[in-house]
Amino acid sequence: MQNAKLAAKTHPQHRTVVDLGNGTTVGGKDLLIVGGPCTVESWEQMVAVADGLEAAPVQGIRGGVYKPRTSPYAFQGLGLEGLEILARLRSHSGLPMVTEVMAVDQIEAVAAKADMLQVGSRNMQNFDLLKALGQVDKPVLLKRGLAATVEEFVMAAEYILSHGNQRVVLCERGIRSFDPYTRNVLDLGAVVALKQITHLPVIVDPSHAAGKRELVPDLARGAIAVGADGLIIECHPVPDASVSDARQALSLEDMVDLVHSLNPIAAAVGRQIAPHRQLALA
Amino acid sequence: MQNAKLAAKTHPQHRTVVDLGNGTTVGGKDLLIVGGPCTVESWEQMVAVADGLEAAPVQGIRGGVYKPRTSPYAFQGLGLEGLEILARLRSHSGLPMVTEVMAVDQIEAVAAKADMLQVGSRNMQNFDLLKALGQVDKPVLLKRGLAATVEEFVMAAEYILSHGNQRVVLCERGIRSFDPYTRNVLDLGAVVALKQITHLPVIVDPSHAAGKRELVPDLARGAIAVGADGLIIECHPVPDASVSDARQALSLEDMVDLVHSLNPIAAAVGRQIAPHRQLALA
Amino acid sequence: MQNAKLAAKTHPQHRTVVDLGNGTTVGGKDLLIVGGPCTVESWEQMVAVADGLEAAPVQGIRGGVYKPRTSPYAFQGLGLEGLEILARLRSHSGLPMVTEVMAVDQIEAVAAKADMLQVGSRNMQNFDLLKALGQVDKPVLLKRGLAATVEEFVMAAEYILSHGNQRVVLCERGIRSFDPYTRNVLDLGAVVALKQITHLPVIVDPSHAAGKRELVPDLARGAIAVGADGLIIECHPVPDASVSDARQALSLEDMVDLVHSLNPIAAAVGRQIAPHRQLALA
Amino acid sequence: MQNAKLAAKTHPQHRTVVDLGNGTTVGGKDLLIVGGPCTVESWEQMVAVADGLEAAPVQGIRGGVYKPRTSPYAFQGLGLEGLEILARLRSHSGLPMVTEVMAVDQIEAVAAKADMLQVGSRNMQNFDLLKALGQVDKPVLLKRGLAATVEEFVMAAEYILSHGNQRVVLCERGIRSFDPYTRNVLDLGAVVALKQITHLPVIVDPSHAAGKRELVPDLARGAIAVGADGLIIECHPVPDASVSDARQALSLEDMVDLVHSLNPIAAAVGRQIAPHRQLALA
Repeated sequence: MQNAKLAAKTHPQHRTVVDLGNGTTVGGKDLLIVGGPCTVESWEQMVAVADGLEAAPVQGIRGGVYKPRTSPYAFQGLGLEGLEILARLRSHSGLPMVTEVMAVDQIEAVAAKADMLQVGSRNMQNFDLLKALGQVDKPVLLKRGLAATVEEFVMAAEYILSHGNQRVVLCERGIRSFDPYTRNVLDLGAVVALKQITHLPVIVDPSHAAGKRELVPDLARGAIAVGADGLIIECHPVPDASVSDARQALSLEDMVDLVHSLNPIAAAVGRQIAPHRQLALA
Repeated sequence: MQNAKLAAKTHPQHRTVVDLGNGTTVGGKDLLIVGGPCTVESWEQMVAVADGLEAAPVQGIRGGVYKPRTSPYAFQGLGLEGLEILARLRSHSGLPMVTEVMAVDQIEAVAAKADMLQVGSRNMQNFDLLKALGQVDKPVLLKRGLAATVEEFVMAAEYILSHGNQRVVLCERGIRSFDPYTRNVLDLGAVVALKQITHLPVIVDPSHAAGKRELVPDLARGAIAVGADGLIIECHPVPDASVSDARQALSLEDMVDLVHSLNPIAAAVGRQIAPHRQLALA
Repeated sequence: MQNAKLAAKTHPQHRTVVDLGNGTTVGGKDLLIVGGPCTVESWEQMVAVADGLEAAPVQGIRGGVYKPRTSPYAFQGLGLEGLEILARLRSHSGLPMVTEVMAVDQIEAVAAKADMLQVGSRNMQNFDLLKALGQVDKPVLLKRGLAATVEEFVMAAEYILSHGNQRVVLCERGIRSFDPYTRNVLDLGAVVALKQITHLPVIVDPSHAAGKRELVPDLARGAIAVGADGLIIECHPVPDASVSDARQALSLEDMVDLVHSLNPIAAAVGRQIAPHRQLALA
Repeated sequence: MQNAKLAAKTHPQHRTVVDLGNGTTVGGKDLLIVGGPCTVESWEQMVAVADGLEAAPVQGIRGGVYKPRTSPYAFQGLGLEGLEILARLRSHSGLPMVTEVMAVDQIEAVAAKADMLQVGSRNMQNFDLLKALGQVDKPVLLKRGLAATVEEFVMAAEYILSHGNQRVVLCERGIRSFDPYTRNVLDLGAVVALKQITHLPVIVDPSHAAGKRELVPDLARGAIAVGADGLIIECHPVPDASVSDARQALSLEDMVDLVHSLNPIAAAVGRQIAPHRQLALA
């Protein structure tokens, strides 16, 4: 990574710990577990998620309000209405909110309501968006493109870093391959590589990689064992009723069980799952 | 392609012929051959290109002024200065200009100077950009993403079409694969498939696929033989001095020879290479 | 290809012309077109193929009698009975026969009846088989593995060459990729590369690459245009009744039309389709 | 896996435990850890391996004597001389020996000296070899092909099972992909899938997948966390002096440390690392 001036480690122990705004961190000893649905559908759905995951615990809630969809005729997300739901849920649960931003002109509104702004796989090399996020005072969760090399992934982060924002979290979410059995191939070797070459936190999304909920818990445990700094996992109060990616969402109960099962794995690799921390709300 | 309401053929002979503004068309009997450098470097370079390709003939000139680069530290293109060079060259050569637009806020300036706006591979699913290009009164050259399926490619075009712009030209430029011998794998089977399922013109960029200039002429001939509606090929007055993609650019002489060699292939599949047509300049 | 001592060109014009035993050659000006079914099913089927293709013309007939099948429970081919059909058809049509050999202990019987021995994709690096075929006095048609690099492909040929058999013909037949639209991705860039680095003939199998018969003719024309030395194409008297790969077989009428359409493409690249040549039968 | 009559689970808890001949098992609660060099080079090398790994512990020793090499001019292994070294080491260490068999006519000699016969990636669909191994009274370690789907992998096992040998162990070792950073992509999602659809044991080879030794320990821990039944890992007394795959071999000290680090991960998923068990030697 000779060209990664800011993302590259300067020494082997070099690690950046990113704070989500309330002492909830990623990249240190505490793992960051984020749960929630693919798409924000309603206030009732989201409050069920937040309440259902309290027992896990999770340290953040995800939910898409701007949705990148292959078809222009597919549901594109609730947009501003969804952002309001996220903001209200943030007050309700006291947890950081993570949501995707797809366009430069969405950044201001999203940054006002969310605690971490996600860049989706399709936009990993949308350099215009990356540059704009370099000027935002919120952490960015950058997902790996479906066919991005490790080097391209790091250099995409470098676009954000070099434009001023040092709070970048990388997310491996599966790469495209030839086997239809899984939706994508989760590349945990890339997670190991990224942890060795960059000081940035690296989390894993096993849900999009697997595309089948029954594969998610084992992959989540594997991700923590290889050294990932956290997980972002799709879960839904009624998975089969999800408006998108229904096949890969865990039930809330299964999500709680999964998080519990992570504790000994985390301990085995010198990590721990942090307790709930409340956001200091204005 | 059940979801492609506008891009799908309504009957087997359904074809859209896209006009570049001066009677130069793509999608009909006439093939569209576009040549030029990866990057606009100077007026002298571009005028050498236009003059050198006159003998081919080509029906359009390409040249990048906004450059998507893996590294934020790599040369990002001449920007507005490059657009001025393109506009001046347009008057000089009388040929349509093709150049890439990477961001919504570049569209207005680029559309004012160029005759066809290119969306690069990395932005094939930058839906924000696609929607904005749906409202532009210029043809759009949409390049296939490095790991995009045929269906995703068609649905990306559908974003542009459904937002109002019916002049979309698809471009196959190689997909990512495991063999380092070629930069990418030119997927001519996708070209055949696209010609069968959509009425939109489909052209081929053998230069980015091959990554090595010695592979380009044969692939260009193959593209015409499988039924592509045209080609976009990198060439440069001094290929090894190119600021980007030097390894894959043809010399202008080789480009002229290549175009000459296409005539019998075109004839064999019922096509022809059009003569130069002058733009009606204001 | 620094390690390819025998397969590599010693000078740019270096070409090997492989004779199938009756003056039918591949690698010179004459193209080699081989047609026939995936699987030999019966004498009646094969004689219909040979008679139906007489108008094409083709210079060889293919048909599998030992079939590599993903499942051990799928039909494994007629074996020796199929070889007898091939031998009888050889006398009937006077054309060279091409069939696959899957195991060392099949070589003797197959070599006694067939004129070219095919190594299938799955066996491209079955080095035991390659070494044994290096000691056979028949041409070998070596198909590229589904995920073999160009270098690995050439080195597999080198195994045969270095064990004594100089009559090796390479065959590109599609590589594995992520798009379910086509069965595999036909890598015509590899054909161009192979023609540049090795003196061995290179033919193309568009049928297995496409997996859909409607894509085959265009890909076949593309293959000749990029410089392939021939084609091997699946066709069947009643395609939908084929016991294997039914979806990709052409009808005999479509095969004849396809071969006719190749003439002007061949001429455009300095090649020609040879007339029928009769084997000198004992 | 509708066609997998013998490899498919008949009920969710269906598991086959394969015995290597001395009570050392794979597929039950005990994990199977196999270590050793890519290639058997000498008696001194192998005894250093066996002695150095005693502290781990490992439950088997690997070492190749018949080597599948891309080039026919590369070292092909010590052959029978290597088998003698393995047999002698088997007496010395009391541990089961695992080695690759590449051809039908090697089976008898290899089965006489080794405790588990490996089928390499290139031969995963060498059906002739699989059928012959179906008649052998030794466990078979079947490695996944570089571009084999999960279904093809299971069906390759089905060839062995349906020919009579029920002791088949599957091994995921990385699939081919586009990123040159790692040699292959370790597909732990496939391991999870295989454990869900087949009752056969599934182990993981992180060494060939990673191609870089510094990635191996984390991937090994990940493999155990996702539910793999064991590991096969390359290690060498002097890694950089290895005649093959030097870049990916661990030192013996690092291998011992790695095995120690697996204990808490194994415990977290209800598994354990078995102690050394001595073979009952004749």
